[in-house]
Amino acid sequence: MNYSAFFDQAIGQLHAERRYRVFADLERRAGSFPTATFRNGTASRDITVWCSNDYLGMGQHTKVVRAMQETAERLGAGAGGTRNISGTNHPLVELETELADLHGKEAALVFTSGFVSNEASISTIARLLPNCLVLSDELNHASMIEGVRRSGAEKKIFRHNDVAHLESLLKAAGPERAKLIVFESVYSMDGDVAPILEIVELAERYNAMTYIDEVHAVGMYGNRGGGITEREGLAHRIDVIEGTLAKAFGTLGGYITGSAAVIDAVRSYAPGFIFTTALPPAIAAAATASIRHLKASSAEREGQARQANRTKTVLRDARLPVMASDTHIVPVLVGDPELCKQASDRLLEKHGIYIQPINYPTVPRGTERLRITPTPLHSDGLIENLRDALVETWTALGIPFHADNQPALPQSDRVVPLMVSKAGG
Amino acid sequence: MNYSAFFDQAIGQLHAERRYRVFADLERRAGSFPTATFRNGTASRDITVWCSNDYLGMGQHTKVVRAMQETAERLGAGAGGTRNISGTNHPLVELETELADLHGKEAALVFTSGFVSNEASISTIARLLPNCLVLSDELNHASMIEGVRRSGAEKKIFRHNDVAHLESLLKAAGPERAKLIVFESVYSMDGDVAPILEIVELAERYNAMTYIDEVHAVGMYGNRGGGITEREGLAHRIDVIEGTLAKAFGTLGGYITGSAAVIDAVRSYAPGFIFTTALPPAIAAAATASIRHLKASSAEREGQARQANRTKTVLRDARLPVMASDTHIVPVLVGDPELCKQASDRLLEKHGIYIQPINYPTVPRGTERLRITPTPLHSDGLIENLRDALVETWTALGIPFHADNQPALPQSDRVVPLMVSKAGG
Ligand SMILES: Cc1ncc(COP(=O)(O)O)c(C=O)c1O
Ligand SMILES: Cc1ncc(COP(=O)(O)O)c(C=O)c1O
Repeated sequence: MNYSAFFDQAIGQLHAERRYRVFADLERRAGSFPTATFRNGTASRDITVWCSNDYLGMGQHTKVVRAMQETAERLGAGAGGTRNISGTNHPLVELETELADLHGKEAALVFTSGFVSNEASISTIARLLPNCLVLSDELNHASMIEGVRRSGAEKKIFRHNDVAHLESLLKAAGPERAKLIVFESVYSMDGDVAPILEIVELAERYNAMTYIDEVHAVGMYGNRGGGITEREGLAHRIDVIEGTLAKAFGTLGGYITGSAAVIDAVRSYAPGFIFTTALPPAIAAAATASIRHLKASSAEREGQARQANRTKTVLRDARLPVMASDTHIVPVLVGDPELCKQASDRLLEKHGIYIQPINYPTVPRGTERLRITPTPLHSDGLIENLRDALVETWTALGIPFHADNQPALPQSDRVVPLMVSKAGG
Repeated sequence: MNYSAFFDQAIGQLHAERRYRVFADLERRAGSFPTATFRNGTASRDITVWCSNDYLGMGQHTKVVRAMQETAERLGAGAGGTRNISGTNHPLVELETELADLHGKEAALVFTSGFVSNEASISTIARLLPNCLVLSDELNHASMIEGVRRSGAEKKIFRHNDVAHLESLLKAAGPERAKLIVFESVYSMDGDVAPILEIVELAERYNAMTYIDEVHAVGMYGNRGGGITEREGLAHRIDVIEGTLAKAFGTLGGYITGSAAVIDAVRSYAPGFIFTTALPPAIAAAATASIRHLKASSAEREGQARQANRTKTVLRDARLPVMASDTHIVPVLVGDPELCKQASDRLLEKHGIYIQPINYPTVPRGTERLRITPTPLHSDGLIENLRDALVETWTALGIPFHADNQPALPQSDRVVPLMVSKAGG
């Protein structure tokens, strides 16, 4: 075995398949989001970020930044230990209280990321429940797939958002067997929303537990930012609601909320929760400030909905192939990995616009796209710049526009190899 | 299936086995570590933390706190995306350069925690290498165990620090088969150190890759804080050195360092790295400030070695059963889970001293202990208070002192069921 040659070759393969990724070195600037400094070797220049997951710009909100600074001043930089070994800091306890309240649940548990919250919680719940059958949406995020795998439980994948398929699997398993339905509210690559009511009704009818990932919805939907389950009045009918503090809330960390017993079980049994340093108090305090602000203020949500809709309209009017989306996410179809990469490069170099190419395996082959996420801070003028830059790029690279006589573009066709890690990276 | 009754029962079982954990709500205070505010319902009072993993008190160092505040001011609270989706911030790029330099390696990769760095890196390396055999020390941390499991690779566990056993396993596998040796430098519950030179020599002889966890050693050992591998001049003979930013460096996050090709492979293939939001720039900047400070200053390391040795001597002189330890970790044997919990409670309530009980499965049954971690900030006066409080507690609860005619206390006897998740939580 020649290890070093082997790893060189593993990397070479990614280059050959055009899947090798280079991360752009960006420095966002508080007070002037969505502007950032892009560094390329020694050169640096200003660009506009159009693919941030800091959906509402809360990462630069004065209340959030001040809470972080002020708490670091008083309590120091880190937590200093695992939750059990002196790492349970007071701001973290307050954050968990705030999150339980956000979703109207008895209890909440904070993790260092949304990824870890999914992996640790799903694997622990499905492992604890005797002979559990996991029913998992085929487009679930990589972190949920990892959780299902780590549980060792039997799993069945249901077709994306297909309640008839889900029902047939539930029926086959019977009411006595432990069953956990795992799904997302907003799927982040297409921006479509799960049929939550139907899934909840099925779960009640067939006696299954429900676990929903609201990572792309918390802070964004519902009167207090409780996500799609708040908007639809369904939170109390879901067993576990999972979310992140790193997208609309603008900070870092992930969490679950649910009944006191379920939360206590995950707290007590999940290695991914137990054996790791707790979130720093300054991060917890910043997240709490963000959640509290978004519970009371709808201005950010409204601003974002307005600019997202405006972006869709302006791009569609220019015949750019905007894909169908029920949410704030604006996917624009390219349909070819090489062109997708070239479009992204050209936007950055020629137009100072940063949008990552989204290629296989994150999305199915043939549906390669640019995924645009307008925030309330993207002005009308920026949207027009974006349109002009996209039109120039589409024309220069010969990417197909949307023909007038074509029907509206659908979401991706879902013909995805099952269980490929996808979404969000 | 009655889910709610089931989870109640899972929690009841922990209570019955005396393994149910309650986290103390602590608020450390920058500028007055190791003092913290302990909250119990509405009451709150000052206590001294004696079990922090912020080993050098860097979490309250002015340079570290200032870097965090100043970066939050300029760049905002969070990273705003995964590494690929606009989450690669400039402070993170600088941090990775700093870490590669710390260990004299070509490249480094930062994760949101040490746990994730182990899980993601070990699983990815062992999964990529064809037909890889993982050789894992039986006392490895839960995060390494998770990584080995997730790889799906065949594994063999070698007896703790037993190079003869390791050699027999290497020999049996033959030189051609891909082999990954996974071990720690400092084992955190006993404070013993691995025979790194012997392991490295075996790896070279039998053509195996080496992966070392230096989580409890980085910042603490070596002239620049490069860990035990720096102290022993062995860093260049190890393939992957893993560490945390959350213990001696006082912040949050984890990392690996190694050859450019290995790091690039993990970067490109590990779901636990790819599909999660990047570390906030303010945390990255704080970590960089801490690492830079500890590269240049040995005062913290010397202060800590002095106070750790002093603690051992003072407690031994009072006939308290201090277990053998080669490092800064001072384990004091209780030998019974119930007494261990009672001792911890009494220290907190009566003496204002916070030391978590360490029980099974973190350590083998019969070796339940208090794990004391003196920092440079624990003054001689605090050490004397600690001694008096421990003596009072040992006497009141009837915990055995160390008899004069007994030989020195050994480390725990290692009769541990293999692969039980342990250490650090
Ligand atoms: C659906 C979904 N769940 C979970 C995560 C992970 O959240 P975090 O970034 O907080 O780790 C992501 C993306 O990062 C996601 O898209
Ligand atoms: C040996 C070892 N490795 C890794 C970790 C995880 O590091 P982190 O706390 O940064 O997740 C720990 C403890 O937390 C540990 O003791």
